Amino acid sequence: MDSKEFLDFGKAMIDFVANYTDNIRDRNVLADVEPGYLSKLLPEEAPQKPEDWQQVLIDVERYILPGVTHWNSPHFHAFYPTGNSYPSIVADILSAAIGSIGLSWIASPACTELEVITLNWMAKLLGLPKHFLHSNEGFGGGVIQGSASETTLIALLTAKEQTTRRMKHLHPDLDEAIIKNKLVAYGSDQSNSSIEKGGILASIPVRLLPTDDKCVLRGETLLRAVKEDLEKGLIPCCVISTLGTTGTCAFDKLDELGPICKEYNMWLHVDAAYAGAAFICPEYRYLMSGVEYSDSFVVNAHKWMLVNFDCSLFWVKDSRKLVETFNVERIYLEHNKQGPVPDYRHWQISLGRRFRSLKIWFVLRIYGSEGIEQYIRNMIQMAEMFENYVKSDDRFELATERSMSLVCFRLRGDDRLTKELIDRLTERRKLYVIAATHRGRLIVRFVVGSRISREEDITFAWKEITSQATEILQSLTPAVEREVHESFKNSAGDIVSRIQSLNIESKTQKIS
Amino acid sequence: MDSKEFLDFGKAMIDFVANYTDNIRDRNVLADVEPGYLSKLLPEEAPQKPEDWQQVLIDVERYILPGVTHWNSPHFHAFYPTGNSYPSIVADILSAAIGSIGLSWIASPACTELEVITLNWMAKLLGLPKHFLHSNEGFGGGVIQGSASETTLIALLTAKEQTTRRMKHLHPDLDEAIIKNKLVAYGSDQSNSSIEKGGILASIPVRLLPTDDKCVLRGETLLRAVKEDLEKGLIPCCVISTLGTTGTCAFDKLDELGPICKEYNMWLHVDAAYAGAAFICPEYRYLMSGVEYSDSFVVNAHKWMLVNFDCSLFWVKDSRKLVETFNVERIYLEHNKQGPVPDYRHWQISLGRRFRSLKIWFVLRIYGSEGIEQYIRNMIQMAEMFENYVKSDDRFELATERSMSLVCFRLRGDDRLTKELIDRLTERRKLYVIAATHRGRLIVRFVVGSRISREEDITFAWKEITSQATEILQSLTPAVEREVHESFKNSAGDIVSRIQSLNIESKTQKIS
Repeated sequence: MDSKEFLDFGKAMIDFVANYTDNIRDRNVLADVEPGYLSKLLPEEAPQKPEDWQQVLIDVERYILPGVTHWNSPHFHAFYPTGNSYPSIVADILSAAIGSIGLSWIASPACTELEVITLNWMAKLLGLPKHFLHSNEGFGGGVIQGSASETTLIALLTAKEQTTRRMKHLHPDLDEAIIKNKLVAYGSDQSNSSIEKGGILASIPVRLLPTDDKCVLRGETLLRAVKEDLEKGLIPCCVISTLGTTGTCAFDKLDELGPICKEYNMWLHVDAAYAGAAFICPEYRYLMSGVEYSDSFVVNAHKWMLVNFDCSLFWVKDSRKLVETFNVERIYLEHNKQGPVPDYRHWQISLGRRFRSLKIWFVLRIYGSEGIEQYIRNMIQMAEMFENYVKSDDRFELATERSMSLVCFRLRGDDRLTKELIDRLTERRKLYVIAATHRGRLIVRFVVGSRISREEDITFAWKEITSQATEILQSLTPAVEREVHESFKNSAGDIVSRIQSLNIESKTQKIS
Repeated sequence: MDSKEFLDFGKAMIDFVANYTDNIRDRNVLADVEPGYLSKLLPEEAPQKPEDWQQVLIDVERYILPGVTHWNSPHFHAFYPTGNSYPSIVADILSAAIGSIGLSWIASPACTELEVITLNWMAKLLGLPKHFLHSNEGFGGGVIQGSASETTLIALLTAKEQTTRRMKHLHPDLDEAIIKNKLVAYGSDQSNSSIEKGGILASIPVRLLPTDDKCVLRGETLLRAVKEDLEKGLIPCCVISTLGTTGTCAFDKLDELGPICKEYNMWLHVDAAYAGAAFICPEYRYLMSGVEYSDSFVVNAHKWMLVNFDCSLFWVKDSRKLVETFNVERIYLEHNKQGPVPDYRHWQISLGRRFRSLKIWFVLRIYGSEGIEQYIRNMIQMAEMFENYVKSDDRFELATERSMSLVCFRLRGDDRLTKELIDRLTERRKLYVIAATHRGRLIVRFVVGSRISREEDITFAWKEITSQATEILQSLTPAVEREVHESFKNSAGDIVSRIQSLNIESKTQKIS
């Protein structure tokens, strides 16, 4: 394809994207396809001869879009939001066209340097400690990684290396393998699955400690676990704390965990993947009180900062410790231009890296930091609107207080009612919400995050939810209905065990 | 930014990209900036107020492009090429706009399913064994990863898990930690740095075995190492073989390594990051003879297949083994639609993933597989042209035979002459080549890969190289010149030690 054809194709795609975004509400947020749908539509062999781009664009609409779950739809309330904005998309076009692989400074100076600058900008905007800034005074700095999962793994591997070095220094006769085999790390039982996975991949057991009744990991729990493990002869090396858990967006108590990490020489990694973006608004910074104790910190700009995936912002207090963990030199990577800028390949798992700081730069310049603040406050305001809907209807109850733009709620009574609600909503495909558990009970997570969300979308969601709830409750047998009705008054509890003995399945087949 | 403004901004960027590409020869391939240049040009704080996109585009030209190393320039001959084409760029626009995070099938069915289909297409196009195909008959399949580095780490971690399970099964009383501590893996001394890094991250020592005089890892070398290690009580678990090494594009002997891996129960991972793309041309498939023994295989579509970074194609023979290594379930990841398609999050390190198969789909349809074949043959032909230039000039010698589109050569005589050549070329910024070592001597790697390369670019490169060589050789003292002249006749060798005693530095200051 030559440049002339690209001008047509590229611009047709720009039109396509604007049209897709403007009319995204016309599509069900969930795809109406069954597993294996696409293999029935596409050939088994790759095309041998070139085809026109026009035909490809037609096939995008015909074959691909029907199978897409529309993460940017204002009816997407599942997981956490994915960042998206027009300036970010345009920056990615430039990044793809330049196509530099920033494996060292000389391999693309601008790629490294803009990352240094924008990561400093971001650290300041979020009110992070100065020790995370690239500067001539310390060894801190930020880097873009592909996901929060990667940063957990990096934090664990770095903690492993540092602790092993420290123990080896203290006890030179100890075998390194024996030290590594005694390492243990900590997270909470509310941690994202990536924390456990990180532990598996790094060969460090991560103990998932119990949280308090607000799903928060507290200092006394950590301290007890550390002391237990020390008594067993284990070596605590790392704490992965979460600011904004996946289930209910709870905030671990950094000001309690931090001093313990310091006392026991544990690396403190802060996973603020979603909620960290809100620290751009000063009124939320109290939730990271104690962050000055942290050794590393991650926030996904690609969740809630209008930057599209992937763009995890990862800061460390002492980058030398990353380099000690990751550095593998080769002659073909050498260059004569070492200086005040990092060779980021030593800060990450892979050798290659894209020019992702362009996205941050474009978004910050075209929205201004004020624009991001406004977007976040706007999302939270809409979540408050939804929260008030839930509060206004006796059939529902909030499972936890709203946190950021996440509202966790349930139908009062037996878990199976809430399960039926989620199943019906999923089956109807107009809203996408997902389940979580809170204190042993099933809840619905409802997140607001789409850049184009407006109040009508919240009203639409509430109507969809309540219409299904009404049908579910109307389909109950009189006996069950009495039980459920009782539960409205009692705010449930022991009703759960009693209702399980009733023949509820016959009427609500999906519940199982 | 609303859709109307995006239409203008997006299309302006399309124009910008076409113009950048069409005129890329007007820019020096290496940037004319010093470390820290950009921090002098950009403010220390992020912008607070929104700015016009027009200003951002002006600043791209003003601040960013001067600091870019132009990987897609036809004067870029360093490392290995990075894939790039217009259809791939346009596919990435769509991927960014859809923005789905394919963490499970339901999170975006099309994202998962197009990946299954295009990875099957690619496996067939490359002539890979059937055991790598997604099918109802086995457990094989392909997945897109971010880099070959990641796939090495995944192969090592999977081998670790499998070997530990097998040993535990054979010796139930053995402690798992003791098993893991005895594991050992193998690569060659020509392996990419990512192999060693993978070993460090996976906590498995990777022995870098010596290669033969063509830089190839042979079966007898592996067998000897395995037997030595078994005698020491170690447990061999994985071999990372390379088809197309970074230094000289050498091909390990898979048909020798494979049977040994089978006999000793070692996972055989094949890293064909660059050269694997050439297997789309049947005439090169003899170089992967023995691939039927492999458990996993990687080729970077983003190197030499017109797909832009990142897009590593990774196949495994038994995906259940990946899942056993990576699977961490959570309720919020559950969905009712399990079926014949994989939940790819269990095949990789991160939870989230982009819609990268669109790039493969667009490229294959718009170029056809014939188009990619033609591109690869064309690049090889231009490398042959360069090889002939080198052969035609007595001052130079080929370090190895040309392999694929890589030509390795040097100035006859002392290493410092070749070092001076590379330094001068880098300083002049018109060509980008990098150094490697071959049998203890410094060589220049010259790769052809840019989609827009044509014969004039090869001629340009040769003129630039010879003009600098002439200057270097003319600047030698008569005594050194005699030595060098001698070396032309002898094809060097012992001349190296003699020449080192001469006062060559005074005339060629950069050599050190």
